[in-house]
Amino acid sequence: MRAIFLIVMLFVFLPVIVFAQARSSAAISVIENLVAANRILAAEGILSGYGHVSARNPDNPERYFLSRSIAPELVTADDIVEFDLNSISSDSQGYGYYLERFIHGEIYKVRPDVQAVVHNHSPAVISFGIGSTPLRPVFHQAAFFLNGIPIWDYRDFGTADGALVDNAERGKALATELRDRPAVLMRNHGVAVVGNSLPMVVGRSIALEENAEMQSQALSRGDVVIYLEQNEETIGSSFDRAWDVWKRRLNSN
Amino acid sequence: MRAIFLIVMLFVFLPVIVFAQARSSAAISVIENLVAANRILAAEGILSGYGHVSARNPDNPERYFLSRSIAPELVTADDIVEFDLNSISSDSQGYGYYLERFIHGEIYKVRPDVQAVVHNHSPAVISFGIGSTPLRPVFHQAAFFLNGIPIWDYRDFGTADGALVDNAERGKALATELRDRPAVLMRNHGVAVVGNSLPMVVGRSIALEENAEMQSQALSRGDVVIYLEQNEETIGSSFDRAWDVWKRRLNSN
Amino acid sequence: MRAIFLIVMLFVFLPVIVFAQARSSAAISVIENLVAANRILAAEGILSGYGHVSARNPDNPERYFLSRSIAPELVTADDIVEFDLNSISSDSQGYGYYLERFIHGEIYKVRPDVQAVVHNHSPAVISFGIGSTPLRPVFHQAAFFLNGIPIWDYRDFGTADGALVDNAERGKALATELRDRPAVLMRNHGVAVVGNSLPMVVGRSIALEENAEMQSQALSRGDVVIYLEQNEETIGSSFDRAWDVWKRRLNSN
Amino acid sequence: MRAIFLIVMLFVFLPVIVFAQARSSAAISVIENLVAANRILAAEGILSGYGHVSARNPDNPERYFLSRSIAPELVTADDIVEFDLNSISSDSQGYGYYLERFIHGEIYKVRPDVQAVVHNHSPAVISFGIGSTPLRPVFHQAAFFLNGIPIWDYRDFGTADGALVDNAERGKALATELRDRPAVLMRNHGVAVVGNSLPMVVGRSIALEENAEMQSQALSRGDVVIYLEQNEETIGSSFDRAWDVWKRRLNSN
Repeated sequence: MRAIFLIVMLFVFLPVIVFAQARSSAAISVIENLVAANRILAAEGILSGYGHVSARNPDNPERYFLSRSIAPELVTADDIVEFDLNSISSDSQGYGYYLERFIHGEIYKVRPDVQAVVHNHSPAVISFGIGSTPLRPVFHQAAFFLNGIPIWDYRDFGTADGALVDNAERGKALATELRDRPAVLMRNHGVAVVGNSLPMVVGRSIALEENAEMQSQALSRGDVVIYLEQNEETIGSSFDRAWDVWKRRLNSN
Repeated sequence: MRAIFLIVMLFVFLPVIVFAQARSSAAISVIENLVAANRILAAEGILSGYGHVSARNPDNPERYFLSRSIAPELVTADDIVEFDLNSISSDSQGYGYYLERFIHGEIYKVRPDVQAVVHNHSPAVISFGIGSTPLRPVFHQAAFFLNGIPIWDYRDFGTADGALVDNAERGKALATELRDRPAVLMRNHGVAVVGNSLPMVVGRSIALEENAEMQSQALSRGDVVIYLEQNEETIGSSFDRAWDVWKRRLNSN
Repeated sequence: MRAIFLIVMLFVFLPVIVFAQARSSAAISVIENLVAANRILAAEGILSGYGHVSARNPDNPERYFLSRSIAPELVTADDIVEFDLNSISSDSQGYGYYLERFIHGEIYKVRPDVQAVVHNHSPAVISFGIGSTPLRPVFHQAAFFLNGIPIWDYRDFGTADGALVDNAERGKALATELRDRPAVLMRNHGVAVVGNSLPMVVGRSIALEENAEMQSQALSRGDVVIYLEQNEETIGSSFDRAWDVWKRRLNSN
Repeated sequence: MRAIFLIVMLFVFLPVIVFAQARSSAAISVIENLVAANRILAAEGILSGYGHVSARNPDNPERYFLSRSIAPELVTADDIVEFDLNSISSDSQGYGYYLERFIHGEIYKVRPDVQAVVHNHSPAVISFGIGSTPLRPVFHQAAFFLNGIPIWDYRDFGTADGALVDNAERGKALATELRDRPAVLMRNHGVAVVGNSLPMVVGRSIALEENAEMQSQALSRGDVVIYLEQNEETIGSSFDRAWDVWKRRLNSN
């Protein structure tokens, strides 16, 4: 009787134990920060109804974490799913996944330095993906893109299938266009931002929108704009302090 | 004595029973979504003190649902009134109705494909109804108006009676100007947006405002703008996923 | 003994009784609406740290109600003070009054049709008080200023004493510049808006800011703007329905 | 036995007593206002993830108060640290300090009239630090900078070390560029605002951002702008009434 009870218990708890053991403390910490990144980017107005943020699995660089398809401000650790670099998940809970998860997988494939990726549609940034003025750094926290941000044009694939990066082929083309840069604009659509940590991609996403707003404001006045110069890429690169501020703000609300 | 009681009860509850039976589960679901649509559009800043959203009655295409005259963010199912396509209601609770409900009725008359209508005054969109630059799609979620948005000019009726679409004649003229398009700008006033579902008109109303903001920002900088091209109308058309996000957001507040 | 008690009571309560009797139900209703007007204009971003709204006393057109100097969103009925048209109060509770209350008193003197006045510094409106483009109506709710808004220039008084309308002489000059119009811009400072009711001045203040935003947006794009034409002043004049919406919104927060 | 207890108690409480005695009521009041200033500037959108506000110690003009490195909206009196004018603290709680605290110390050194300093990155103000149009006063509350705002260019130090004022040498150069003015723009970075009280620097920081917004809006429309003239510096200088409003607002939330 007691033996049966133990066997039943084993079957009930085994998956839990295995699952728990599958995550190192580093991975658990990344997932926790990924939840925070979702909520910070929602609170800062960078991720609204669309867009997503991912992080590479520190236990296995061939896999990455990304929420299932849910509003970023509502994401919890339970919503995080693990994908391989072909953006296929072993998980099968019947939830929907982001159609454009290939952005993440294909970038992780070709950029081993990248540990986190944001895809967003923040409005001032997109406005530079629909116009003729290059987005260029105008304040110190934007020094990270001194070498410029390339623009990927989905129309190289024809236009019949729309602008979404919803398959591996388009993801690969976007990752190729990204090259060694910190971000790539997607023509008439949005942006993909990369970095070597979650704080960095969150900070870069926010700084990019602020930069786009300020550059637009000065140009709309008719100003000649003074851009940052080469050899200034030494500042504001990690965003670690701002990350602390943003996280504490989440907890105080 | 008991018979009298039963007869009295019957008279008291009969209207309730009849009313309840008059709504199919499809209609109840539409009314529930119509309440959500009011609150989502208020939360997103599309409907402020003025403007309204309606849905065709799935049980009877010759009738539509619209709130009585109340702030969109306060609308409940009890505020929803049923109108025929001449925008006359059998209801007589003494509440005021929207003066411009004829926008809805007259569009439903000539566009059998339309299941929902939004009339709003979102600021960036109106700014295109007062100027010389055509509103054109600049990002993928705006592909739905690739064929352009006509502008209806109330001044064809003279200007002595103002700009409001507060009778059937003006409603009919607006519906004629709309043609087969997803929206029609109202010169110096606002916009009417149509679609085959509530999620679609809500999504289109939000995307239209975002598009107007981005197009304005790029043009104010002096940019040459790259607009979406023909044959790109395959994307972002249903807004079903965003609808889920917006509804969950309402419930989490 | 009992007589003494009654006499004491009389002296204690007499002022209260007299004060209570001094207000008709019309005046009490105006004070209640004046509190709401303060809070609505704060919630809509029209009154921030500075600015104020007043109403003429319906019991005595030679007097008007205005809050003591306090943040508009915190005003209660107890903060409302009564002034004569020279902006002098019989009240002496030691509270500070708005330095610029002369705007109100001097306008009530020369405009018997005016029942309420708002002085505010809403940003887009002020931007038209610092530039060369005239503020002109671009949407139907702005039809009330089809005849234009004059600009009063404090520099006619020299500049040594600053721009504030903090005495009767300047108030009189501003009221003269206002003429028969619904509002007067104050060069490099703000605006005074008048109307025949509190809902009207609140609605006009909000519509003026919205109009200024939209006109700016269209002009910044480089558009040729289509302004409202004469003979369109028949619409959106009372703002009574919007007033209901704004008040209900206050109560639901 | 009892003697030992008293001696132990003495050692436990002595630092507290000494610390408490080290602060006059004037200093305690300044610290309380410094906490309020942090929270007001955060609520008004002037201090976001970065930026800081300080006040000179009224008990010792050779020292100033500044929060440890924490989000401004979360600052409490316990977070306030005292620095000498070389920006060195005797405190050693292991908390991080703001890298750019040298802005404060070096300004207090050369400007004995200055009692409070704000360093912020409010977006419209920075947009004037990246462009060719001088920021000039357009409304009465901005009269305080009628003599203009100098722009400090960190590139005079070369660009290899970035734009941050994170050492005494750069702080000294910034303070020199400030001269006798109320603020100094930092090219491609932010602004430092000074005043003779906390209400004044808070009010000036807010008015500066409002002025930058309005000046930008008028210039973007293509307007010829009317700036304030000399001899108008008599108004809006203390911001004491607005300070009361801002503080009451904090307490009512």
